[in-house]
Amino acid sequence: MAEIAALAGVSKPTVSKVMNGQPGVAAATRERVKRVIAEQRYVRNGVARALSAGRVGSVNLVMSEIDSPYFVEILRGVEETLDNAGLSMVLTTTHDEARRHRRWMARVVEHGTEGVVLVLPDEHAAPLEELRRRGIPFAVVDDRGESLSGVPSVGATNFVGGFAATEYLLSLGHRRIAVIGGQAYRCTTARLAGYRAALQEAGVPVDPHLTQPGSFRQEAGYAAANALLDAPEPPTAIFAGNDLQAMGVYRALYERGLRVPDDMSVVGFDDLPLVSLLTPALTTVRQPVRNMGALATRMLLRMVAGEPLENTRVELATSLMVRESCAPPRPLE
Amino acid sequence: MAEIAALAGVSKPTVSKVMNGQPGVAAATRERVKRVIAEQRYVRNGVARALSAGRVGSVNLVMSEIDSPYFVEILRGVEETLDNAGLSMVLTTTHDEARRHRRWMARVVEHGTEGVVLVLPDEHAAPLEELRRRGIPFAVVDDRGESLSGVPSVGATNFVGGFAATEYLLSLGHRRIAVIGGQAYRCTTARLAGYRAALQEAGVPVDPHLTQPGSFRQEAGYAAANALLDAPEPPTAIFAGNDLQAMGVYRALYERGLRVPDDMSVVGFDDLPLVSLLTPALTTVRQPVRNMGALATRMLLRMVAGEPLENTRVELATSLMVRESCAPPRPLE
Repeated sequence: MAEIAALAGVSKPTVSKVMNGQPGVAAATRERVKRVIAEQRYVRNGVARALSAGRVGSVNLVMSEIDSPYFVEILRGVEETLDNAGLSMVLTTTHDEARRHRRWMARVVEHGTEGVVLVLPDEHAAPLEELRRRGIPFAVVDDRGESLSGVPSVGATNFVGGFAATEYLLSLGHRRIAVIGGQAYRCTTARLAGYRAALQEAGVPVDPHLTQPGSFRQEAGYAAANALLDAPEPPTAIFAGNDLQAMGVYRALYERGLRVPDDMSVVGFDDLPLVSLLTPALTTVRQPVRNMGALATRMLLRMVAGEPLENTRVELATSLMVRESCAPPRPLE
Repeated sequence: MAEIAALAGVSKPTVSKVMNGQPGVAAATRERVKRVIAEQRYVRNGVARALSAGRVGSVNLVMSEIDSPYFVEILRGVEETLDNAGLSMVLTTTHDEARRHRRWMARVVEHGTEGVVLVLPDEHAAPLEELRRRGIPFAVVDDRGESLSGVPSVGATNFVGGFAATEYLLSLGHRRIAVIGGQAYRCTTARLAGYRAALQEAGVPVDPHLTQPGSFRQEAGYAAANALLDAPEPPTAIFAGNDLQAMGVYRALYERGLRVPDDMSVVGFDDLPLVSLLTPALTTVRQPVRNMGALATRMLLRMVAGEPLENTRVELATSLMVRESCAPPRPLE
């Protein structure tokens, strides 16, 4: 019951009302709770069937790396969901090397698996095609926003996130808002488009000098911030491509004796576990990576149970976490 | 060759010299390189034997949680080592619940395993005893400094770490150095003893008011720092029980408008991946948790290969990482 309440985002009494057919629950909420209950039932049936067939009862999680808290959050979502379903998790990191991809595939084929959850690798066409050919169920955590056609996958609303961050900075009075890009993934394109759309809606011209390129690393945020600060007309706010970049922005400001948020507002993207502990605590666009891992796993378990997926592509909502790193711009001297 | 060089902490040419019996390598170094080569050979033989016997080729990693970067680093050390040996890793988190302990044990018994690496759980006596009774090889990452007798385990030199941090603050001229404790594990006792020993060696009296209790969480560091700052005679430096506590100390200082390191020096413990990115970057005692995970795994693989362990208990060195969070104390007005 507690699990269903959490999954549906409602209270336990609400779940109880829906289960007992009592009134006092909005139609949309009732629908959502019923869907979660049905899903959970499928999961349990499917796993029970698998176990009674004497199968190994493990799912493979394949990801390129776990050297960022970001990937660890995905891992936690997958692990918790499998644990609730009574399944083991076999973890493989590939470092995006073809050799390691061949190795996990060979092991999966040799030792069997309930299915595979993949965090979308750089070269994903071949492994996904091979899984499909071999009839091994799989679902993808697509944190790159690739929207793979026909592949069960979970993403996040990157455009909306970019829009929300920019809209918030505009609402504080900022007009010169810089943005730092990221790797050439669709998620980067979508975030930048959200940034531009918010500016346009507010009638603020898009200044191309205020868009800096960058990888998703701290060093990139540091370099981009320095470039922006050295420009003739620096911004009053920086929307970083992710939280690691935002930490690089913090460093560039710190080295120049500039303070966040008095001298510069900073927004991140991801909401890594530690950024709420920074001083000042980072305002950032939360990407629900743990839920993305959990939902991809639930999609996989439904397929394992032989149940159809209602949606093969789902994007979970990003949300702006307002903390301490933004303030109105300083008035001009 | 690169792996042996890395494991032995020497260059590749040195490994090459040792392998070819060439001169120009110190006796102790030669000895260390030979030992690593032998270990790696054992590992490969053992795994080859296991695989040719048609076994599943996976090792279970059991840990209480992965909600801290600390545990993730252990995980990475285990995963890398298993991956190099061509083995799969099955990951289980127990949340220190007896029910979950029974579950992983049941799975290990039912599905088989090469062996188990455990990050020492709160209630470890029963699971370790059961593994022994069933003849399942295991090794322990003992980050609590429990020094379990007769159990293959890897710890860290906590006393030395506490001593080094305090000695460093003394060398900067600090005399009123506070320390924050941690959970009631032996590692906490050892770190506090190192702190006291360094003070005593420098002839600085140990003021009991400067020792604050605390759990290993950020909130505890925050509360301890506030208590210390509100005392009649505040310290000029705070040695936190771990990095999360140090981030709580940063916050308490930030809220009072006090600056690190100008107004207060801060030292952490662990060296979590992100603390080098903080502003100011945290000076901390590095606990080689990834290597601890890797070494425990190598010990397990030697046992799997039927080779004797030269040492059942190994403690890896902690080391002080000097960054930006410490400075000499302000001169008295």
